[in-house]
Amino acid sequence: MSEIESLLREDLRGKTAYGAPQLDVPFALNTNENSYAVPAAVVDEIVAAVAAVAPGLNRYPDREFTDLRGDLAAYLSRSGTAVSPEQVWAGNGSNEVLLHLLQAFGGPRRAALGFTPAYSMHPIITATTGTTWIDGLRGIGDTSGPFDLSLDSAVSQVTEHDPHLVFLCSPNNPTGTALGLDVVEAVHDAAPRAVIVVDEAYTEFARPGTPSALTLLAGRPRLVVTRTMSKAFAFAGGRLGYLAADPELVDALRLVRMPYHLSSTAQAVARAALRHADTMLATVDVIKEQRDRIVEALPGLGLVPVASDANFVLFGGLRDSHRTWQALLDHGVLVRDVGIAHYLRVTAGTPEETSAFLEAIASLGPDHLEGQP
Amino acid sequence: MSEIESLLREDLRGKTAYGAPQLDVPFALNTNENSYAVPAAVVDEIVAAVAAVAPGLNRYPDREFTDLRGDLAAYLSRSGTAVSPEQVWAGNGSNEVLLHLLQAFGGPRRAALGFTPAYSMHPIITATTGTTWIDGLRGIGDTSGPFDLSLDSAVSQVTEHDPHLVFLCSPNNPTGTALGLDVVEAVHDAAPRAVIVVDEAYTEFARPGTPSALTLLAGRPRLVVTRTMSKAFAFAGGRLGYLAADPELVDALRLVRMPYHLSSTAQAVARAALRHADTMLATVDVIKEQRDRIVEALPGLGLVPVASDANFVLFGGLRDSHRTWQALLDHGVLVRDVGIAHYLRVTAGTPEETSAFLEAIASLGPDHLEGQP
Repeated sequence: MSEIESLLREDLRGKTAYGAPQLDVPFALNTNENSYAVPAAVVDEIVAAVAAVAPGLNRYPDREFTDLRGDLAAYLSRSGTAVSPEQVWAGNGSNEVLLHLLQAFGGPRRAALGFTPAYSMHPIITATTGTTWIDGLRGIGDTSGPFDLSLDSAVSQVTEHDPHLVFLCSPNNPTGTALGLDVVEAVHDAAPRAVIVVDEAYTEFARPGTPSALTLLAGRPRLVVTRTMSKAFAFAGGRLGYLAADPELVDALRLVRMPYHLSSTAQAVARAALRHADTMLATVDVIKEQRDRIVEALPGLGLVPVASDANFVLFGGLRDSHRTWQALLDHGVLVRDVGIAHYLRVTAGTPEETSAFLEAIASLGPDHLEGQP
Repeated sequence: MSEIESLLREDLRGKTAYGAPQLDVPFALNTNENSYAVPAAVVDEIVAAVAAVAPGLNRYPDREFTDLRGDLAAYLSRSGTAVSPEQVWAGNGSNEVLLHLLQAFGGPRRAALGFTPAYSMHPIITATTGTTWIDGLRGIGDTSGPFDLSLDSAVSQVTEHDPHLVFLCSPNNPTGTALGLDVVEAVHDAAPRAVIVVDEAYTEFARPGTPSALTLLAGRPRLVVTRTMSKAFAFAGGRLGYLAADPELVDALRLVRMPYHLSSTAQAVARAALRHADTMLATVDVIKEQRDRIVEALPGLGLVPVASDANFVLFGGLRDSHRTWQALLDHGVLVRDVGIAHYLRVTAGTPEETSAFLEAIASLGPDHLEGQP
């Protein structure tokens, strides 16, 4: 053991850092980015916003990011559920927002439960804060697919473990399917001492009729809905994640955030993008079409897609996921090996990207399929 | 206790968040910002840099901020001590960099020691990560002032407590004086299992002949030097803190940082400012003149300044710090009550700001002085 490793926190020794490959490939379909560049009109607004704040960068930013909270509240309220600025919190990506939640409500001798496979950062951030992670299970009981979470199973697992935080990822990453609000309500009621975090990073891509847990916030001070501008909003490089919750819960996060955690430029750039919300979200419909195109095409290739409310599709039926991942990469198509045997995940982007993916996987032939001789 | 408070981590209950007042006053001399606005030429470069990255904000940033690390290494190397990109780490403000250090090397059943009064965020970030804080003492033994730290006292306290991290703030905030490198070396050797963090946030303002702990990095893999662009660099709103250390120690921080923690805009804007380092630092000399002017003027007003290597002056001799703080605020001058009885801290800025401060404090009269009838 090196000197540095001997100094490291015991539970971090031997670990490797999170890392989706950042490779320079023709078709990067592995991190669920929005494939469409920021439109010129929004670029102009972003540049003007930075020009306005740049002379004053010698001063600290507004520590409470008051204007940005107002804009995010107004954006969320467009869905029909009124959200006030005091209900909104934000960070440098939703990862930081999740970190704040775990720092405030988790910690040593406390546990967080999530139903895996789900967003891979949930257990990592949990461990970073010294919180115990409990691996909840999917596909138990009356479910239509192996990655679905039934109400009874969720309630039973939460009741058994009585955690301090519960993560409900809806639409679920990496599997793609949204959760019914009845499950959110039931989990909330079954875990009376838990902060319930509904991670809705992909919610803008959900199929028609999928409601948001925002509609459940009223009267539930322990319920939190996290969102991000990284996916539908095409703003992954801007790093702006946020949440909506009870004002008192939000206020408690001020105890653990680093002061001035959101720079003046981060606040200004996010606000500029939010002023163009309709433009930024204009690509959502075409992306959903491509997602549905992938879902419809895969069975004809002998593959099994999971129903998706997101901008990606998890598909199974592969003999060896890693081998197929490499073969697709050899064709210039980078998808995600999410660590589920026989499955891979692909981002839905432009029609050209979808074609490239479908052509590449078709060209691999039946040798890549599970159950083939 | 409210429901939310009952859910909060036990040690956070009843706490209040960090908060220097952000008041709109004629003379804000309380957070040690650089009073000079970012020059127009640098603003232009920042705006151009954002214009270049804005169209691609739909993509995640370079998670390893490779180019920025290179630029920060080149900037540090200007001091004469060669620093490689692999030795550099950065975050959204030095607070985040300090958080990463505590997340990696602190935690439950581990302790961090700092010699207070020092940067008030050191114990707060320590507590945030569940690390035990040990309040080391200043002014013990052979010191010329009440806030100086003697080599023997530092070694004795570190030996007694055997901590996992030691904070050495040099120049020390809020007292102002830099530490001799002999103390850093001795503390390093006396704490064989500790990561030694030398917080050099204010180092660019140090009096001539004050060496940086960068010169001690070679051969000391447990030594870390933190820096910030918030002070001399006039970039507090840009939120860019960084550190230099052994490449293996730096690499370990990847285990605890949130992926993509530095946005594409944060990286681009910081790089633009670094390209104009000479311009950004051009105000340092005039600020040091104002600092020395304050140090020289205060004794004539019956006050006792502490020797300063920073862009602020701590001064004592007050009957009631809070009452004088309020009286100065009534004159439009916001200084910092750092919680040391009979002392206040004032930022050195423009000549006009210095004049306003000195005139305001002179106008208060001897009634504000300690030991007056």
